[in-house]
Amino acid sequence: MDFSLSPRATDLRDRVRAFVDTEIKPVEASVQAEILRRRESGGDPWTPLPVIKELQAKARAQGLWNLFLPKEHAGRYAADFGTDGGEGLSNLDYAPVAEVMGRSALAPLVFNSNAPDTGNMEVLLRYGSPDQQREWLEPLLDARIRSAFCMTEPDVASSDATNMAATAVVDGDEVVVNGRKWFSTGVGNPECKILVFMGLSDPDADRHARHTMVLVPRDAPGVKVERMLSTMGYFDEPLGHGEVSFTDVRVPAANILLGPGRAYEIAQGRLGPGRVHHCMRTIGLAERSLELACQRALSRTAFGKPIARLGGNLERIADARIAINRSRLLVMHAAWLLDQGMSTQALSAVSEIKVEVPAMALDVIDLAVQLHGGGGMTTDFPLAAAWVGARSLRLADGPDEVHRSVVGRIELGKHR
Amino acid sequence: MDFSLSPRATDLRDRVRAFVDTEIKPVEASVQAEILRRRESGGDPWTPLPVIKELQAKARAQGLWNLFLPKEHAGRYAADFGTDGGEGLSNLDYAPVAEVMGRSALAPLVFNSNAPDTGNMEVLLRYGSPDQQREWLEPLLDARIRSAFCMTEPDVASSDATNMAATAVVDGDEVVVNGRKWFSTGVGNPECKILVFMGLSDPDADRHARHTMVLVPRDAPGVKVERMLSTMGYFDEPLGHGEVSFTDVRVPAANILLGPGRAYEIAQGRLGPGRVHHCMRTIGLAERSLELACQRALSRTAFGKPIARLGGNLERIADARIAINRSRLLVMHAAWLLDQGMSTQALSAVSEIKVEVPAMALDVIDLAVQLHGGGGMTTDFPLAAAWVGARSLRLADGPDEVHRSVVGRIELGKHR
Amino acid sequence: MDFSLSPRATDLRDRVRAFVDTEIKPVEASVQAEILRRRESGGDPWTPLPVIKELQAKARAQGLWNLFLPKEHAGRYAADFGTDGGEGLSNLDYAPVAEVMGRSALAPLVFNSNAPDTGNMEVLLRYGSPDQQREWLEPLLDARIRSAFCMTEPDVASSDATNMAATAVVDGDEVVVNGRKWFSTGVGNPECKILVFMGLSDPDADRHARHTMVLVPRDAPGVKVERMLSTMGYFDEPLGHGEVSFTDVRVPAANILLGPGRAYEIAQGRLGPGRVHHCMRTIGLAERSLELACQRALSRTAFGKPIARLGGNLERIADARIAINRSRLLVMHAAWLLDQGMSTQALSAVSEIKVEVPAMALDVIDLAVQLHGGGGMTTDFPLAAAWVGARSLRLADGPDEVHRSVVGRIELGKHR
Amino acid sequence: MDFSLSPRATDLRDRVRAFVDTEIKPVEASVQAEILRRRESGGDPWTPLPVIKELQAKARAQGLWNLFLPKEHAGRYAADFGTDGGEGLSNLDYAPVAEVMGRSALAPLVFNSNAPDTGNMEVLLRYGSPDQQREWLEPLLDARIRSAFCMTEPDVASSDATNMAATAVVDGDEVVVNGRKWFSTGVGNPECKILVFMGLSDPDADRHARHTMVLVPRDAPGVKVERMLSTMGYFDEPLGHGEVSFTDVRVPAANILLGPGRAYEIAQGRLGPGRVHHCMRTIGLAERSLELACQRALSRTAFGKPIARLGGNLERIADARIAINRSRLLVMHAAWLLDQGMSTQALSAVSEIKVEVPAMALDVIDLAVQLHGGGGMTTDFPLAAAWVGARSLRLADGPDEVHRSVVGRIELGKHR
Repeated sequence: MDFSLSPRATDLRDRVRAFVDTEIKPVEASVQAEILRRRESGGDPWTPLPVIKELQAKARAQGLWNLFLPKEHAGRYAADFGTDGGEGLSNLDYAPVAEVMGRSALAPLVFNSNAPDTGNMEVLLRYGSPDQQREWLEPLLDARIRSAFCMTEPDVASSDATNMAATAVVDGDEVVVNGRKWFSTGVGNPECKILVFMGLSDPDADRHARHTMVLVPRDAPGVKVERMLSTMGYFDEPLGHGEVSFTDVRVPAANILLGPGRAYEIAQGRLGPGRVHHCMRTIGLAERSLELACQRALSRTAFGKPIARLGGNLERIADARIAINRSRLLVMHAAWLLDQGMSTQALSAVSEIKVEVPAMALDVIDLAVQLHGGGGMTTDFPLAAAWVGARSLRLADGPDEVHRSVVGRIELGKHR
Repeated sequence: MDFSLSPRATDLRDRVRAFVDTEIKPVEASVQAEILRRRESGGDPWTPLPVIKELQAKARAQGLWNLFLPKEHAGRYAADFGTDGGEGLSNLDYAPVAEVMGRSALAPLVFNSNAPDTGNMEVLLRYGSPDQQREWLEPLLDARIRSAFCMTEPDVASSDATNMAATAVVDGDEVVVNGRKWFSTGVGNPECKILVFMGLSDPDADRHARHTMVLVPRDAPGVKVERMLSTMGYFDEPLGHGEVSFTDVRVPAANILLGPGRAYEIAQGRLGPGRVHHCMRTIGLAERSLELACQRALSRTAFGKPIARLGGNLERIADARIAINRSRLLVMHAAWLLDQGMSTQALSAVSEIKVEVPAMALDVIDLAVQLHGGGGMTTDFPLAAAWVGARSLRLADGPDEVHRSVVGRIELGKHR
Repeated sequence: MDFSLSPRATDLRDRVRAFVDTEIKPVEASVQAEILRRRESGGDPWTPLPVIKELQAKARAQGLWNLFLPKEHAGRYAADFGTDGGEGLSNLDYAPVAEVMGRSALAPLVFNSNAPDTGNMEVLLRYGSPDQQREWLEPLLDARIRSAFCMTEPDVASSDATNMAATAVVDGDEVVVNGRKWFSTGVGNPECKILVFMGLSDPDADRHARHTMVLVPRDAPGVKVERMLSTMGYFDEPLGHGEVSFTDVRVPAANILLGPGRAYEIAQGRLGPGRVHHCMRTIGLAERSLELACQRALSRTAFGKPIARLGGNLERIADARIAINRSRLLVMHAAWLLDQGMSTQALSAVSEIKVEVPAMALDVIDLAVQLHGGGGMTTDFPLAAAWVGARSLRLADGPDEVHRSVVGRIELGKHR
Repeated sequence: MDFSLSPRATDLRDRVRAFVDTEIKPVEASVQAEILRRRESGGDPWTPLPVIKELQAKARAQGLWNLFLPKEHAGRYAADFGTDGGEGLSNLDYAPVAEVMGRSALAPLVFNSNAPDTGNMEVLLRYGSPDQQREWLEPLLDARIRSAFCMTEPDVASSDATNMAATAVVDGDEVVVNGRKWFSTGVGNPECKILVFMGLSDPDADRHARHTMVLVPRDAPGVKVERMLSTMGYFDEPLGHGEVSFTDVRVPAANILLGPGRAYEIAQGRLGPGRVHHCMRTIGLAERSLELACQRALSRTAFGKPIARLGGNLERIADARIAINRSRLLVMHAAWLLDQGMSTQALSAVSEIKVEVPAMALDVIDLAVQLHGGGGMTTDFPLAAAWVGARSLRLADGPDEVHRSVVGRIELGKHR
């Protein structure tokens, strides 16, 4: 179990961190203020601000671009679109890079390494046809367009993927798409041009062969973004989470990914690394929250002492440090296992961090909020938004309960 | 320890509950949607919707009005402005009434029993001069105007009230007010006409005699609402939480409450019942959240079973029931103790519930969110807003840490 | 919901508490030392020490005897054997009396109000024939003999009572008893003369009509105490928990309680009040532990301060106070509901406290242990034994999981 | 951060684990039974059973002996007394070896790697004079004698080491030792021949230069074991924890370790690796407990299902797996940091695991107990004793509170 980073990963981590600190953090507050201003004045909060585009260009110029590209699949794309070093990183090497990206909510987009585009690009990389790659993957890698992933449905418990009721029916050389999806992250952004849609094709097939994944252009007739959803009051501009209806949408059968009935297979592959990325970034979120907590605890005074010295605050700071450290190691462990190749152990490890890390982060962020007093709930600090993000992660990409069930069943399996 | 409700309280509770169910709940979603619509279109989200006014009139016509008026101070106001029964309720009798009001975020305003107006009205009732009562209390009891309470400051740890740095200096027959306050709840509403301001008058006086409470008209020159604050993304329209600057604001000395240097005394009296009311309402919030959780758990199916039957969900529902029941009893205990007269035991009891109840509610609501999946984070259910409300309560009116300290010191005091 | 105590209950509570403080606590340490001495020297730790007999006589002389006798069934026994006041107490009135008994591990036996004798006496009171009552109940009420309850079995998950495999088969005018039981509390004591045995009679009957309860004299041929069990190192002398084998034990059919196949019915009735008693006593245990914790925290000094002032200790003391108070109210609530007559709500309430109270007590005692340092783990303080007692209660009379399931199903039932 | 084990460590771990499984586990129950039998019959429970000696010989013959010897200090001792491989292991390499030893309470003694002898041997190795090493270290490495460590005192809060009041006063070429110590682990064993005593020499010296460590032969006049202490009912035979009085005990000044006033320095060095060893073994304890839990959960049936499938049991098993995995990584991290040389980061890491690991183990063991029902509390399974061992560890070698304070202060120190 060697968690040593390669020199390249160490260098990338340091450079990404410096970029976040010097380029991104200084604009965080003004970006939030501008979105709020647009929202309050009836303006458009969804079009990305020019500053995001500028930062993207600067990051790309420094080779800090598409760093998520996986070692085994990056191929020529790493050289063409990820300009630093010319090959993909292992999961372990990407871990600290993603962690430091997680320190700012804006950073993943700036480095073209944000969900759901990373997951969608990976799917296209691994399963896309050359035509699909040319049409959709390359502009995504260029950040010329954005994408969304349409899986969860409002009308069924989507934690059970076989519940999915929206349909993607092959009709000759077309696929007909019908149904309603929500939490389609990314559809708020007007640059979102392509939707990765997962639908029921053959209800009579084997449980894991019923669904098909298909590429649906955002502007195909019959596609309608019904509304943008807030999560605990946040709209997560400029990407946003949408509820999308599909009414007799027809796309060429060539838009099917991998083949009819193979959506489940893709989804499994798509969600593995995606979950690890989420957890990596969440470590960074927790780390930054603890930093803010410490700074506040040292700088504010009550009852004649810095609040760091009051009651159980010091102990809670210690618990936060312990929790972050152990969670980070667990994430590195999962990344390392994935690098060894998929296995039952790796499967368990991914579910382990999916349970552990968001819960850990929620505790740490909550402590930071509490130490900031009422201010911690406002937009003056990134803490409230951080909490909401971590809370969402207890539901997104499989709720805690499903992941606990995976871990528990694998554990019991050792004793059968 | 007799927790029996009077027949009048039982009747009021049943009628308030019925009103909430039949009149308020049906409009919750459309009110939220309208505020959102106004906000997105650059409209004014702060002016209360006409439906609120209509509901207030209807509630008042049924005698469900100003029910918070305390037994010992209600006096003629209960008869003139609280039209049912003509006298104030004991704390114990008010507990279940407030609980059922807590079932809807809109309800307290509809029944003219919302914070901070209740607290401000109590202050005026107990400490106001006849002129102050005529000018401000009566229109508040009539809901013709609204009020705010300006205590917490952005620049100091306000958990220690003696930290407060904004000033209220007596200058002849005037008081000069300077400084900056935030979390001034209510100032968003254009009907807010009066601010109860707490400021430093005499830094050399005894620790608890330095501050003065003074009535500052909202439109006095030098008063400026700098911005409205969101808490975890929520603006809590139509009341809202504002940051307010006071620059050389001059008001007549007759606007002083009780007398110079007596703010601390008033604040203690003001916050006691207010904290109990918050906790009472929070019980109702938790109870409704558990109802939603159970309904969802029974109606959604995954892996071939209602989700109520999956994993630890049933156990968590049991824990929620246990937690609500024990918290409610603790709130009734505190209310009963307050009714016996202020005492060290009552002081502890108020701090006990202030720690216990929001934490309990957060757990219950979190469970409900989780059982609703992603939908639980959206405005489709009142859960996300409920969570934010309960979370704020761990900071408002004294953070957990301060209340734990009160309880702990009283406990140790028994052994000295 | 009137939790007021009757004057008689208040008086009994005060007198029992004074008795515990002045008569029992002073001998606790020497009793433990003597049992340990006997054990280490190969002596008999099971025969109750003379001091217990003396204390029993003294308690009885003061009318503090058999106070557990239930209001509705005490009948002439309260007058004849419970010499104070001549009638049984309501559950609510017994609650504070049992609580103060719970302050010392020795106390319940001293007041002839210890499990499992109380439960067995209640069974005989409610379901015993006049002959059974004369032969077994009266000497138990006199504390001339002791009893055991033989239900749990080592070879099956006894949380599911229908799993029970030991047999009690009616054969003419005899019952033949076979099988193995454990956690038969009380069989260590040589004064234990009667075993209440629950066994399978008719495997083909309806699920809840298969088992029979029968009185088996301790000295019946074929009854053998195989060993005494320790729970976390404690043998709980002089009662003890035994593993008992029954080999073709024959007793008269007249020894059957209520009738063949009616064991389940009795068990339900037996365990309800027993569980409430356990919880009542556990409140007292927690209360005393918190007292010890506070005294220690004030009297020990480290790093220049009393440890009460170090880190989070004060906050934890506050949490313990909150937890005890809320749990006590929940126990009173359950007792009050039982006094209103059995109902679904009362059934839930008993399970609620069975989950809540031991968990609460474990937290409080653990805090007290921690504040006592290593000493808290030794016999120098009653804390370690208290912890073990509370831990056992998470398993005895139904494990947490079963009680949570009861509460959860009743909760969901409201929404069907 | 390379957590890869050396081939030798991998081999040792596998062989130790096999030895534990095939040689030690089969005798666990009979050893416990024999100690209990001796205890109940007034026999001597303290003299190690012959089987322990036989197992020690067998382990030594296989080179599984003194494996705790640290890489940097083992020197010739590793070759002479630790017969496998001839050199000490790094902390990281020892971690998995110690973990598998932790699977049985008997194992550490069998491999001559038990506390406190390991700590005492390390002290002699690092700080002992050649004479001290010849007289005490070599027989300890041979397991011809045992030792105890006398630091904690009954009359002061020993979490603050500067509180220690027992004295070790240099008087010419002798040291005079007076005072009372407790939790002197190992003094029960009649083979215990040497006590490492820490006492106050110069109350006026600098805070960390007041105490001296001195070797006191067990049979020196004035040394008296007053009593053996139980921890939650366990005496931990054959080592045991004693309360020891020292009355004008005189030993040669040559028995001083390192020099007068240098005890603190030694204690810090002694406790670092000792704490890591405790944590390593505790991982093994938790791992074995989880195995037992899974086996029980699969083999017992209630309500028609294996209990693994009931309620939240599967989720709790998952949580246990997650908790063990993350704790193990944190322990490896601390071991790896120690191998890099002492640093603030390593100091924090040791305190982090000292807080994290026992708490984790308590949760896992508690789950295992609960799944075993009443049996889990008895000596039929190693769980109850395991729980007590882990609980003690929250106090031994510094209570949680002290370690949290270390971690917290280091964390805040980053922001000053």
